[in-house]
Amino acid sequence: MGDPVLVEVVRGARVESRHAGAFVVMDADGMTVHSGGAIDAPVFPRSAIKVIQALPLVESGAADRFGLDDEALALACASHGGEARHVAVAARMLAAVGRDESCLECGSHWPSHAGAGRALAVSGAEPSALHNNCSGKHAGFVCLACGLDEEPRGYISPAHRVQREVKATLEGVTGFALAEGSHGIDGCSIPAYAIPLRALAQGFARIGTGTGLAPGRAAAARRLRKAVAAHPFMVAGSERFDTTVMSGLGEQAFVKVGAEGVFCAALPTVGLGIAVKCGDGATRAAEVAIAALLLRFLPGAEATLEPFVRPVLRNWNGLEVGALCPTEILSS
Amino acid sequence: MGDPVLVEVVRGARVESRHAGAFVVMDADGMTVHSGGAIDAPVFPRSAIKVIQALPLVESGAADRFGLDDEALALACASHGGEARHVAVAARMLAAVGRDESCLECGSHWPSHAGAGRALAVSGAEPSALHNNCSGKHAGFVCLACGLDEEPRGYISPAHRVQREVKATLEGVTGFALAEGSHGIDGCSIPAYAIPLRALAQGFARIGTGTGLAPGRAAAARRLRKAVAAHPFMVAGSERFDTTVMSGLGEQAFVKVGAEGVFCAALPTVGLGIAVKCGDGATRAAEVAIAALLLRFLPGAEATLEPFVRPVLRNWNGLEVGALCPTEILSS
Repeated sequence: MGDPVLVEVVRGARVESRHAGAFVVMDADGMTVHSGGAIDAPVFPRSAIKVIQALPLVESGAADRFGLDDEALALACASHGGEARHVAVAARMLAAVGRDESCLECGSHWPSHAGAGRALAVSGAEPSALHNNCSGKHAGFVCLACGLDEEPRGYISPAHRVQREVKATLEGVTGFALAEGSHGIDGCSIPAYAIPLRALAQGFARIGTGTGLAPGRAAAARRLRKAVAAHPFMVAGSERFDTTVMSGLGEQAFVKVGAEGVFCAALPTVGLGIAVKCGDGATRAAEVAIAALLLRFLPGAEATLEPFVRPVLRNWNGLEVGALCPTEILSS
Repeated sequence: MGDPVLVEVVRGARVESRHAGAFVVMDADGMTVHSGGAIDAPVFPRSAIKVIQALPLVESGAADRFGLDDEALALACASHGGEARHVAVAARMLAAVGRDESCLECGSHWPSHAGAGRALAVSGAEPSALHNNCSGKHAGFVCLACGLDEEPRGYISPAHRVQREVKATLEGVTGFALAEGSHGIDGCSIPAYAIPLRALAQGFARIGTGTGLAPGRAAAARRLRKAVAAHPFMVAGSERFDTTVMSGLGEQAFVKVGAEGVFCAALPTVGLGIAVKCGDGATRAAEVAIAALLLRFLPGAEATLEPFVRPVLRNWNGLEVGALCPTEILSS
């Protein structure tokens, strides 16, 4: 636990809880611009790298072959709330390859957006794999398999062509070699590879700038970033950090949360990439940390970011009872 | 952040996240049996002390005067899921003093039990203050005010007789002097006082044994513990740690969660009290820590506790992907 405290949770005049973690801001050539904590220890980036996992869908030509539009490409990069529009786009992606939700191997859960869950219950329906927050990524995997003229079944296995393409892309973008058999299993059942924050941040600087990527991959990254910037609702949903921040920042920032306190971001206009891991896995602290880092490195983004840099905590009567506060290491 | 790591979150062969914190096990005379981390720093116990906050309701004679039964007394100590049975008992408590939910000053929120929230939506109703997880405690405060022949309105203010009684009881049980004006505001709008873990643990040893309490207070504590042991559903609800553990352990343990990673427990049969604070506020880690400590100090409780000491993490397909693991300091 040598990592510095990144965020303090304040109630009244007292620090109630503390979140330690690591972060790094890199350029695409590998120069470290700012960092704190253990940035060379491999961590599971979880869903923060969905944009990298979606690259083969575009690079392979599958997205064009099946006519996937920008909403679909944004959903392929998403951890969405299972709201009706997300579900409709996931279904449309599968229909484009003549498939349906029975092909999805991510499992089912109630929509993570509570209101969408209640609306689904009121409609009398049960959740399906389309409501899984990863259904867009998985629909993209099914489309990729079809584009490669492979049988989609089993696409979650590390041995399947889809996951081999994804793994090679991850290695190519981050420059980090992923040892065979070293992976965990993600919430949606695909392999989860651990990668140091330093390699993730440099990879996202490449995603943002194209520097160090082959032309086809650089174009695919640009297309995915632009798709998400055009449809930020698709990448998360109502009342969600990623959607709100990207709605405000447009193409200045691609920002993606991962489970267990991870964030990755690409900042094309300033040529930087960022990776954050809150050591205890808390999303609330990772949000504050990435907001503080975005504010520091994106001139003119104050209006969008300031509510997220020091979010006020209110209780059930709407009274202000505290705040989440970034520590000096993030901003100084 | 000098506190030791208490719980590791493991995915595959790798530690994905780590939770540091502090804990102490005490007897009622103030002897420290086991501890780790900063146990003398005041922390907000939040809802972990509801059983202490409910003592005046019984001690004052109000519970008897209004015929509150064991279900009601258990709900007065609860952070409940807003399930139908919880809501019915809270309404019954208010009816016993000729009041209704319009007297509650805790605010409204959708039931914290997701299934109860969906059921409420399907019924076409909106959540009220009765669904607030603290509604039983607040209904108890309204009953206490009526028992003291005070107007309940404003019972959440530190200046109201109800909160002055609660504060004096907290000081009496824990032996820790609460400075005027030093409090924060809790999620349900009552004052939140910070108290060191050492004082909380000794206080819970007293709650469990009666040692060091006046006879009337010792009897009130015993009555509340027995009410919760008889109706563990009331104190939390379906699929909840406190309810499951107390359903298994009966009167051997009174266990109560608080927000931001707090647990307090009274172990009457072995004469001990426990207090835990996960430094980052994570309930998942505080559950593992209290389960490991209960297992260590309660002979014969393995069947109930072992599933909670090293809970398996499963993904949306039901695959085992990892586990929460207590570190050696908790058990050795």
